[in-house]
Amino acid sequence: MKAPITLLAVVLAAIGTTTAVNAALPDPGMEIDRARTALVITDPQNDFLSPKGVTWGVVGKNVTENNTVENIETLLKTAKAQGIQVFISPHYYYPTDHGWHFEGALERLMHDIGMFDRKGALTTEGFEGSGADWLERYKPYINDGVTVITSPHKVYGPETNDLVLQLRKRGIDKVILGGMSANLCTESHMRELLEQGFEVAVVSDATAAAQVEEGDGYEAAMINFRFIANTVWTTKEAVQKINDAK
Amino acid sequence: MKAPITLLAVVLAAIGTTTAVNAALPDPGMEIDRARTALVITDPQNDFLSPKGVTWGVVGKNVTENNTVENIETLLKTAKAQGIQVFISPHYYYPTDHGWHFEGALERLMHDIGMFDRKGALTTEGFEGSGADWLERYKPYINDGVTVITSPHKVYGPETNDLVLQLRKRGIDKVILGGMSANLCTESHMRELLEQGFEVAVVSDATAAAQVEEGDGYEAAMINFRFIANTVWTTKEAVQKINDAK
Amino acid sequence: MKAPITLLAVVLAAIGTTTAVNAALPDPGMEIDRARTALVITDPQNDFLSPKGVTWGVVGKNVTENNTVENIETLLKTAKAQGIQVFISPHYYYPTDHGWHFEGALERLMHDIGMFDRKGALTTEGFEGSGADWLERYKPYINDGVTVITSPHKVYGPETNDLVLQLRKRGIDKVILGGMSANLCTESHMRELLEQGFEVAVVSDATAAAQVEEGDGYEAAMINFRFIANTVWTTKEAVQKINDAK
Amino acid sequence: MKAPITLLAVVLAAIGTTTAVNAALPDPGMEIDRARTALVITDPQNDFLSPKGVTWGVVGKNVTENNTVENIETLLKTAKAQGIQVFISPHYYYPTDHGWHFEGALERLMHDIGMFDRKGALTTEGFEGSGADWLERYKPYINDGVTVITSPHKVYGPETNDLVLQLRKRGIDKVILGGMSANLCTESHMRELLEQGFEVAVVSDATAAAQVEEGDGYEAAMINFRFIANTVWTTKEAVQKINDAK
Repeated sequence: MKAPITLLAVVLAAIGTTTAVNAALPDPGMEIDRARTALVITDPQNDFLSPKGVTWGVVGKNVTENNTVENIETLLKTAKAQGIQVFISPHYYYPTDHGWHFEGALERLMHDIGMFDRKGALTTEGFEGSGADWLERYKPYINDGVTVITSPHKVYGPETNDLVLQLRKRGIDKVILGGMSANLCTESHMRELLEQGFEVAVVSDATAAAQVEEGDGYEAAMINFRFIANTVWTTKEAVQKINDAK
Repeated sequence: MKAPITLLAVVLAAIGTTTAVNAALPDPGMEIDRARTALVITDPQNDFLSPKGVTWGVVGKNVTENNTVENIETLLKTAKAQGIQVFISPHYYYPTDHGWHFEGALERLMHDIGMFDRKGALTTEGFEGSGADWLERYKPYINDGVTVITSPHKVYGPETNDLVLQLRKRGIDKVILGGMSANLCTESHMRELLEQGFEVAVVSDATAAAQVEEGDGYEAAMINFRFIANTVWTTKEAVQKINDAK
Repeated sequence: MKAPITLLAVVLAAIGTTTAVNAALPDPGMEIDRARTALVITDPQNDFLSPKGVTWGVVGKNVTENNTVENIETLLKTAKAQGIQVFISPHYYYPTDHGWHFEGALERLMHDIGMFDRKGALTTEGFEGSGADWLERYKPYINDGVTVITSPHKVYGPETNDLVLQLRKRGIDKVILGGMSANLCTESHMRELLEQGFEVAVVSDATAAAQVEEGDGYEAAMINFRFIANTVWTTKEAVQKINDAK
Repeated sequence: MKAPITLLAVVLAAIGTTTAVNAALPDPGMEIDRARTALVITDPQNDFLSPKGVTWGVVGKNVTENNTVENIETLLKTAKAQGIQVFISPHYYYPTDHGWHFEGALERLMHDIGMFDRKGALTTEGFEGSGADWLERYKPYINDGVTVITSPHKVYGPETNDLVLQLRKRGIDKVILGGMSANLCTESHMRELLEQGFEVAVVSDATAAAQVEEGDGYEAAMINFRFIANTVWTTKEAVQKINDAK
């Protein structure tokens, strides 16, 4: 109990808000080393990002305000141009998943509205253009034969898929993270990647979340990203750092 | 894309706020079966819960408002009285942990202020009464020889300790979750327990969080608990459900 | 150091081999409760089990001697008849997996011989009848819409797929385990399931392994199953226990 | 199914045994980069390595033949001299662990004979010189304040402790692995480290195992190390490679 934050707070109060913000919570930052850094995008799928997707009614406003669709594309384009490896962690449900005995609140909702549904693990019937498919404009980047498409995560984090292994098998230990949705899969990916010893920079406007009467998922995520990640960047900052990296 | 939330929202708007809240996000609930349910408390330690702890300056107000200290004790007392097994997941740092090459924001802060520091994994020198020790009033419940004290988690979640195994080795698949701090270790425990296939009921006033200029950790946690957990209870509700369970 | 095994060994030597075997290593056994028990089969795929598969030259003799192909089918048929849930954990490699920077010995070999290769995670082109496909005779059991087909594991164990979650989401905590190959994926599944707090009964003749100049994989697995699992059954014993269970 | 091993085997048979061995199972090898490589030792504790330990009756002969005690010390000494970081993953059981509802065969045996027992997670009473304590001769290397002592693993692998995080937090991605016992904790560490994307070189004579009527644990481990690890070295080879590394 040697250096109470209370003291810190007093000092900070004395020197003004902006400094206080920086001083109170450190911002460790993250240096990009191109060979060891990946862009990871969670759930870049129609059900979150298309006006026809099943969740547009609750995420559409936030997606639009953040310019999320364009920002994710900008990250994909920049990473490809600069030789940063890209990993996509999708979310799919198969018919057997509807036999689960219990679910958390959003899991229940996603199952009820048929979100991310596919007809099976070993068939692509009906997949093209469905809510589970990639947003059309991302396909050139994701389906180029180089981008690593992991197995689907089945709750929110990468604990149930091969993302961590795929990153490690390529010597990656730093992740630039974006995608949908901010306080669910994106945040669970950030948390698990940190538990596994990665550095994570979250891109705050390359994501968005449901804003409902029970709460603003985007606001919650922004607080937790700032508290937990190694650093938080805007898309503009991320692009510049990728371009400047060696 | 068969049952868009937009439709749901329209319906909800038509029938009024309270109903809307319940309808928009389902509340799956959790039935307590005493033999299969545990109380899990994260970080019931001085550095979070004592006015002398290193974080009291940023969490003290929220701890006081929520009546967190008393509520955690009420949960411990009720669980013991009703034969619900209790598991404690503590947070300790050893001198070698200060040799880590990188840290997220709050990890950096915790290290800087000497939070949860112990002199080593195999010594208890200086531990008694330190910031890493249990809050004094909890010791009769935690040190009774029955409560399971897991190894320390080293980031925020139980990925780095034996909590999941200890629960499973006793046939537990439902968890009542409280402790500190709401949006860090408590939330990471909730998320990981769900990934591991547990049902989790979070107790909203048996926790608290840092409230700083960068954001209100308690507010973020409350949003995410509501979105993600199987259900959210107050201490009063949790006590009644434990007492009513068979 | 209170009850040295040396004493045990002396006693055992005095009472004869058969007793000694049982006495030296306990056999904890596993009671089948139908609602909480699953049959898990690893890699029931052509590349291991078909004479046309890429590994038949090193596993074929053992597969034939053990009657592995028929025994796995007997387990599948019995489980389906008795309402025991079935989970299949397959092994697939995608073109991007050939970009890994390093591999263990057998991983290297599997990649070199094109084992379990598919054309991509999101295409089934060329899959039907390939080395990665199910053995033809198992298809009625696996493709019945009820059997849970997990995402592929990518090294040997279920750490990189959703098997553990899929089991837990259905209240399963006991596993009857068979499949290919004994000392690689089957053993890694046994070990990880135990770490995750499952009870595991391995079926010794519903598996087989590579037998090469460097060593007999089947012999290694049999030793480790006996040391580590909750119990080891033959197919005949497993069938009787499933039929007798409630 | 393009390059069947059968063909390989025919070719190999034609060119003689030694070549065949190398050809049949590749040996990917592991380059040591001092900053990214660690020495990891499992269970260097009295209950395995001291003639007074509870398992000496079944492991003593193999420990003596392999020169295991001296070889582990040689590895520790060499690593310290050359600036290779050392991590120890111990095995402890606490009184509450004896309340587990089920165990595998060796877990049951270890509990029955009081192996690795300590009086609690937060007391060192009775620890000094007990079966759970380090072998006396290793203490200068392990207790130097630099070696990282992880939390105990609770089954066989590092899934239940912080080893993976501790390695990653220091930029380690290659592991030289030794310790006790070969086919239990050492092998489970090898398997899990590979699943987590580490390269692993196992040191074949810096380990040993139980040899009982049910099977020879050392033989099983040697087969699996050869099949699975990136490479297998003797202590002599490991020392030379560490000394030659940059």
